[in-house]
Amino acid sequence: MSAVRFKARETIEQVEEGYDLAPRFDDRGLITVVTTDATSGELLMQGYMNAEALSLTIQTGEAHYFSRSREVLWHKGATSGFVQSVRELLIDDDQDCIWLRVDVAGGASCHVGYRSCFYRKVPVGTDFEAGQREGHIDLEWTDTEKVFDPLDVYGDVPNPTKL
Amino acid sequence: MSAVRFKARETIEQVEEGYDLAPRFDDRGLITVVTTDATSGELLMQGYMNAEALSLTIQTGEAHYFSRSREVLWHKGATSGFVQSVRELLIDDDQDCIWLRVDVAGGASCHVGYRSCFYRKVPVGTDFEAGQREGHIDLEWTDTEKVFDPLDVYGDVPNPTKL
Repeated sequence: MSAVRFKARETIEQVEEGYDLAPRFDDRGLITVVTTDATSGELLMQGYMNAEALSLTIQTGEAHYFSRSREVLWHKGATSGFVQSVRELLIDDDQDCIWLRVDVAGGASCHVGYRSCFYRKVPVGTDFEAGQREGHIDLEWTDTEKVFDPLDVYGDVPNPTKL
Repeated sequence: MSAVRFKARETIEQVEEGYDLAPRFDDRGLITVVTTDATSGELLMQGYMNAEALSLTIQTGEAHYFSRSREVLWHKGATSGFVQSVRELLIDDDQDCIWLRVDVAGGASCHVGYRSCFYRKVPVGTDFEAGQREGHIDLEWTDTEKVFDPLDVYGDVPNPTKL
């Protein structure tokens, strides 16, 4: 299986309107990744890939990320079993963001145990004005049912959330 | 109109499972934003907000970002007219990513002129194996019809894409 060869970024025309895969990795060597459920369209998570993770994702069709908290290549689902099968991989205009449309085995993508990492919303506009008390607002929960118990799946692995 | 007050980040429990809005801005003072079309679910763009942009978005219900290329607060649509009305604003488990579900006046969100910034895809898995030539692959276009001509809308404003 040949590794993926990325092209050098030479012109704006090439990057924005061409056929070359010429991703822009930032000064940490990472590109931003947005992952949605291919069926429901729901945003599942946002992560990062380095060149190796992007290449492996393209080659295998399974989502690989780079974990910033653990500083390792991360085959999503290797621990939890919730592998993400990539139905489509898209790249944005200036090629500094990847969009994965995936099917998730078992249906969960969030280390807290929910289907999606985005289970709380912030009231905006007139809802913000109606609900706030001197600028303080409460988050509203959109999902309260966990798909799994993190303790069962991850045991005593440290929580990746940084304060 | 009171400004939004963010809470200090004190515990993982508070951040992941609480009602406090306690966003994590990175060392540049920015939080990642993912913006999808509220009707179609399509990923429109990925950007960044600083605290001011997040506060203004919550207060006004219209998407504000921080432009890294121009280093300014950016009311999306102020130049192009393609204002994004926020139907829902969600935040992820560790509160370092915002998801905006928006309605876009005029239907375009991409400075190149397409509806979405994600108009090209990369073949993955067996499609990659079938199409690649020694690791080289061609992007496939998923949208070829521009909603507007960037020259008409932006004139001689410098292209924000960085090589």
